[in-house]
Amino acid sequence: MSEPPRAAPPAVTVTADALRRFTRDVFVRAGMPEGDAAIVADVLVWADLRGIDTHGVSRIPMYLRLIDDGDLNLRPSIKIRTETAAAVLVDADRAAGPLAMTTATSAAVRLARDAGVGLGLVRATTHTAALGYYTLTAAHEGMAGLALAASGPFMAYHGTRAAGVSTNPVSIAVPGGARGPVVLDMATGVVARGKLVQARKTNQTIPAGWALDRDGNPTTDPQAALIPLPLGGPKGSGLSLLIELITSLLVSNPIIAGALEGAADGHRHRQNGLVLAIDLRRFGDPDLFRSEVDRVIAALKALPRAPGVVEVLMPGERGARALAARSRDGVPLPRAIVDELGGVAARFGLALFPSAS
Amino acid sequence: MSEPPRAAPPAVTVTADALRRFTRDVFVRAGMPEGDAAIVADVLVWADLRGIDTHGVSRIPMYLRLIDDGDLNLRPSIKIRTETAAAVLVDADRAAGPLAMTTATSAAVRLARDAGVGLGLVRATTHTAALGYYTLTAAHEGMAGLALAASGPFMAYHGTRAAGVSTNPVSIAVPGGARGPVVLDMATGVVARGKLVQARKTNQTIPAGWALDRDGNPTTDPQAALIPLPLGGPKGSGLSLLIELITSLLVSNPIIAGALEGAADGHRHRQNGLVLAIDLRRFGDPDLFRSEVDRVIAALKALPRAPGVVEVLMPGERGARALAARSRDGVPLPRAIVDELGGVAARFGLALFPSAS
Repeated sequence: MSEPPRAAPPAVTVTADALRRFTRDVFVRAGMPEGDAAIVADVLVWADLRGIDTHGVSRIPMYLRLIDDGDLNLRPSIKIRTETAAAVLVDADRAAGPLAMTTATSAAVRLARDAGVGLGLVRATTHTAALGYYTLTAAHEGMAGLALAASGPFMAYHGTRAAGVSTNPVSIAVPGGARGPVVLDMATGVVARGKLVQARKTNQTIPAGWALDRDGNPTTDPQAALIPLPLGGPKGSGLSLLIELITSLLVSNPIIAGALEGAADGHRHRQNGLVLAIDLRRFGDPDLFRSEVDRVIAALKALPRAPGVVEVLMPGERGARALAARSRDGVPLPRAIVDELGGVAARFGLALFPSAS
Repeated sequence: MSEPPRAAPPAVTVTADALRRFTRDVFVRAGMPEGDAAIVADVLVWADLRGIDTHGVSRIPMYLRLIDDGDLNLRPSIKIRTETAAAVLVDADRAAGPLAMTTATSAAVRLARDAGVGLGLVRATTHTAALGYYTLTAAHEGMAGLALAASGPFMAYHGTRAAGVSTNPVSIAVPGGARGPVVLDMATGVVARGKLVQARKTNQTIPAGWALDRDGNPTTDPQAALIPLPLGGPKGSGLSLLIELITSLLVSNPIIAGALEGAADGHRHRQNGLVLAIDLRRFGDPDLFRSEVDRVIAALKALPRAPGVVEVLMPGERGARALAARSRDGVPLPRAIVDELGGVAARFGLALFPSAS
């Protein structure tokens, strides 16, 4: 007598508040000051609310590994190394990415108020999380925001069959009018690394052109897929390399070269970041800017659609809708993630968040 | 009796000096001040030297059309509208792109010396030409340079079957060490529009995935190909849209919306630009930066190559080699371009440049 086929395990739905509380408590138990833990929790759960599941609470186990390995400093001494009329260099002392990046964003926004433009460079942080959080922070302050992050090599460099660069992401956001802000947040790979990780966890076949296996051969097997391919070949890997150069090398903390050379600590996790803010008010009428954003969106949405397309979407529009829905209904989490977080809760003697439904 | 098959017409080779002189003389005869004409000539011929044939002297007829149509102002009154400690807004009064962009680049570099970062915004210019010229100017000053340009809609917006955005380019450059600077200059389309124009002129079939025809259907026919497709779908068209927002809307000169709405002057040629410079010396040791650039290049070049790849190339490396070869041997021009420029020479009573070989 065979068992009936197992249905896909149901997702658990959790309120954002419960997720934030849990995440904060985990990092406090791990040894992080409560204020810092609250910032990390806010940035991670924001990604879950926006539907960027690859950058949300599913990263908690990874952050804990970074702490266990000594890569993420729980009690960093974050220092401003350089401050000019328009720029700061934040030496993050291996602080959690959300702490370092929010520090740099605040500085960039503050400096841009006077100087029109503000640059916040981040040296030696860890996983920066979803960059859209920081550029939208600038947008909410009436500014255009641009953010970059640089990390270790795992994406193919064009022309090679090996991991040579990261999928270093770019985010740009601006305030909008009635339709809200526009925010682009894209990796320089064909897909973000998180998508490959998720395909591995859910064992779903990946499209051709996404990744190479460990030997550098193209594959669609989610278990074999290891090396994501760059967006548009030389464009994606070139852009990723330039992000390493204007971020990591600019702050004297190169990542790629040491890792490729096989230096003893070359593969230790570390990241660098860059946040740029431009104050709209210094260059024009911000109300006109906002209405012009709505105007161009309306014009694009009125274009004839490609076959099979139901709606023309703007960058960040899907995320804004997810935010509205998940703020109201809660964040759905796959059973595999909940199980993993159950292990985290047990480790720290915490109760797992209650399901909202 | 049939004629023998016609061989491909031979290219004519011309020295850079002769090309520059001819280009300058054309614009002087058209009514441009000699100093301005020399700058335009330098920027266009630089593109030819770098092998960016789509942005070189082949654009002279287009520039002349812009002059004839009143879109390019031969005697502009270029004004600095906003100047802060780190930013300028250059109101270009429809000056030729190379004039406006070199003005903005100089200002950005000057401001970055003190402020660490300098931003030059350009309002209301014409064709900006190859952005790598401006970012390499910043790199030669010991700075990281970033440039954007925004123009009218002719690329498909993802999810539509119509021209909704431009192939708005991005360039980033940094100084290097013994290997020279690294410069990325990429359009947000799968290919630059110039490549489609060139395929049409030479009647070569284009790859699938490059373009749509006038009805929004995919095509490989160079005569039918009209609408280039965005790089990586939503990524390319999203990035292009954000460039319009942080460039054109920031300087109160929106381009896309009016064109899509079919406004009376919505399709008149105009562009806006942005140049950012970051002074390496303010954030670290520039000599270390340069040696680290060489180091990461060496590490990437040592990676195992993909099948069929002879050499792993860095962004701008092909262009640097073309510059060396063409500075020495001259610039090869296809017969079709030479014939077109012959017409230009006749119009202005100029002698056509002599062939170098």
